[in-house]
Amino acid sequence: MKRQVKAKSNQPQIRVLLGSAVAIGPGKASLIEAIGRTGSISSAAREMGMSYRRAWVLVDTMNRCFTNELVNTTTGGPGGGGAQVTDLGREVVRRYRAMEAKAANSVVGDMKGITRLLRGGG
Amino acid sequence: MKRQVKAKSNQPQIRVLLGSAVAIGPGKASLIEAIGRTGSISSAAREMGMSYRRAWVLVDTMNRCFTNELVNTTTGGPGGGGAQVTDLGREVVRRYRAMEAKAANSVVGDMKGITRLLRGGG
Repeated sequence: MKRQVKAKSNQPQIRVLLGSAVAIGPGKASLIEAIGRTGSISSAAREMGMSYRRAWVLVDTMNRCFTNELVNTTTGGPGGGGAQVTDLGREVVRRYRAMEAKAANSVVGDMKGITRLLRGGG
Repeated sequence: MKRQVKAKSNQPQIRVLLGSAVAIGPGKASLIEAIGRTGSISSAAREMGMSYRRAWVLVDTMNRCFTNELVNTTTGGPGGGGAQVTDLGREVVRRYRAMEAKAANSVVGDMKGITRLLRGGG
């Protein structure tokens, strides 16, 4: 069953770009976390309701954007197998989530103000 | 000629949702500003490189999400013609841009930190 992965309502979304590529964003951060939990790209992809191919491309993009790999995919051997989040991967996600939280906190008041202007809001 | 409208690099993007609809986000805010500048949905759409139909749907969504219209499209008469940004429209965009600026300011340091981890970054 596909599980829709949705952004937390009304939370600022942050994307870090390298050129035109998204090095890290909401979907990629969640994917790294899911790989950390499940230990494989395919399980993480399933959990997030995306294809293995799509998850692999996202991981490949991240790995190319940063100075070192965020996810080590060589541990599984040719048959597929495991994937490991590297120390750099954990650091990038930690910093990313910290940024998200700060951005969200900084706009709590304004968000309430704008929500009061919504139909049925406030 | 189509002009690509791109998000400012590495700036937090904020979307205000009503249910699953985006009431206001980066694209819709730019569209309102373009309508304010050009005085019509079709000119604004052209400026943003989107179809008239797409711009009209975005305006319609915004107008439905808020307590009152952000863009008044009845001023042009049956032949099309003008569109006016309402006082509420101006207020929503002002608050939205203020939120964006605050969120961006709040993550300047972290963004620098994460950028240093990018290939060729820092």
